[in-house]
Amino acid sequence: MKSEEQFLKLIDAHFPREGQAVTLGRGDDCAVLAGGEPFCVSSDLFLEDVHFRRDYFSAADIGYKALAVNISDIAAMGALPVAFNMDLMAPADLPDEFWDEFLHSMAMLARQNDMVLTGGDLCRADKLGVSITVFGVAKGGGRFLTRGNCAKGDVLFTVGDLGMARAGFMALESLKDKAREAFPAAVNAHLRPKPKVLIGTLLKAAGAKGLMDVSDGLARDLPRFLGPDLGADIALKAEQLNGNVVAFALAMGVDPVEEAILGGEDYALLGCANFMDMPRIETVPGVTVIGAVTDKPGLVVNGEPFDAAGFDHFEQ
Amino acid sequence: MKSEEQFLKLIDAHFPREGQAVTLGRGDDCAVLAGGEPFCVSSDLFLEDVHFRRDYFSAADIGYKALAVNISDIAAMGALPVAFNMDLMAPADLPDEFWDEFLHSMAMLARQNDMVLTGGDLCRADKLGVSITVFGVAKGGGRFLTRGNCAKGDVLFTVGDLGMARAGFMALESLKDKAREAFPAAVNAHLRPKPKVLIGTLLKAAGAKGLMDVSDGLARDLPRFLGPDLGADIALKAEQLNGNVVAFALAMGVDPVEEAILGGEDYALLGCANFMDMPRIETVPGVTVIGAVTDKPGLVVNGEPFDAAGFDHFEQ
Repeated sequence: MKSEEQFLKLIDAHFPREGQAVTLGRGDDCAVLAGGEPFCVSSDLFLEDVHFRRDYFSAADIGYKALAVNISDIAAMGALPVAFNMDLMAPADLPDEFWDEFLHSMAMLARQNDMVLTGGDLCRADKLGVSITVFGVAKGGGRFLTRGNCAKGDVLFTVGDLGMARAGFMALESLKDKAREAFPAAVNAHLRPKPKVLIGTLLKAAGAKGLMDVSDGLARDLPRFLGPDLGADIALKAEQLNGNVVAFALAMGVDPVEEAILGGEDYALLGCANFMDMPRIETVPGVTVIGAVTDKPGLVVNGEPFDAAGFDHFEQ
Repeated sequence: MKSEEQFLKLIDAHFPREGQAVTLGRGDDCAVLAGGEPFCVSSDLFLEDVHFRRDYFSAADIGYKALAVNISDIAAMGALPVAFNMDLMAPADLPDEFWDEFLHSMAMLARQNDMVLTGGDLCRADKLGVSITVFGVAKGGGRFLTRGNCAKGDVLFTVGDLGMARAGFMALESLKDKAREAFPAAVNAHLRPKPKVLIGTLLKAAGAKGLMDVSDGLARDLPRFLGPDLGADIALKAEQLNGNVVAFALAMGVDPVEEAILGGEDYALLGCANFMDMPRIETVPGVTVIGAVTDKPGLVVNGEPFDAAGFDHFEQ
């Protein structure tokens, strides 16, 4: 892609400018989002050699996941994504086909979620990087599912396979392309995490008190979800985990349950609800009860205190 | 800064979470911006060795300018900034003092504009980089000053010294620290461009038809402002330019008017208005009439066709 104009034309070929929540599309100093309902906003970085490697992420995987991890934050509010801005750091050595695949894949995911690309910036850089800011609305009442709403005795549940993305990541790092045959579901969980937008809205309707996107691993994210005065008593057996997580943990000689609780980047949803509401919550596809909220800060897993740092993109 | 937690604490020390337009502050999966008025949004990258160099930008300059260039997009809509998200790419080798100065300087500018930091992401990277998405509202009526509203015969005007930031940038690149003594105003224009929020709202009230942020130079931005069917007849004399621009151009043996029209990163405002409204427009401080809109696409400067590409961060 030689010039900015060419790149912008390619973006226009993939992403429409118009959409329900957008009063003025991209191309001016700003885009304008329609007034009325409150917007929820979130920003995430997706950087080469930090969040992904180009040797096993295809262009389509990168374009997909850069947007998917952002949509996941909207899903975790029980909200619907409507638009996003993208700041793109583009190395000069990538061929036009790369960008076509990258944008096509991202555009497919945007279209599936009725999202409009409302602006951004474009720059040369040594490594590929994407910074996306995503906008969502809480249809029907305006309630957002925030953190910190749990009380002692509430039930904790997750939707999404814990530890899968970590197993996929570690398998790809150690086995490269062979990982795809050996642990296909785990590899797919790392390359193509599915944002759970519909699940989030269903959980909201079913009476979930709070919801959170587990992106840094349960061990790190659960205390953020509960706040400083509460803890959790988790009961999680290897039999409840995806077979790929167990198989990979056994191959590595580590404990699958510990791996599942440490595992980052699953983009699973973590929620809490009153015991009385669980029958309705459990009608939502994929809900797994993992434990209960206690008034003792800290994590107890299968009866033992659990102490681990989880996953930190910053400290790596 | 050793851990993400420490960095987030430093951010919390500098940036309040609460603000008028913010229903839920940062710290959850998303922040929530209050419903009601439409929001205008814009994103800009500010990257080391593309937009700034660390050898002559201080930490405070970088923190300031990363936010200032974003606010400028809101000003160019005739709107008021209310909040922003920041994705930060942070090299591991910068000392704590660097971050303290960087955040302090950014926070000062945010406070001056009543802006809340509503979220973001934090990551290690080889080079320092900032991706900011900024949110604004059009107080009083909701009109945003967009591009493409000019008609033949409209008057074109600017607010802000054209060519100053380019002169400052080139002086810093060639003379390093000596540039600060020789061309202080131009250097300051490059390091610390002033977003013109108040000017933007005054121009809106005075009847400007359209407004735009000149970030890539007038030669490149004017056609974007006018659209494909219009052109401009510009009359610009060296005497109208800032003395630093003229002095630097003479020192380099180039034409000061040409430099002013090519000059990128000035974050000047470019506007158009009906001839009848100019008396009111000219009461706004800093307004300089630069020409008129014609129905012949292309730029004519002082009677001669002007053909130049301006400034492109992507092609560099």
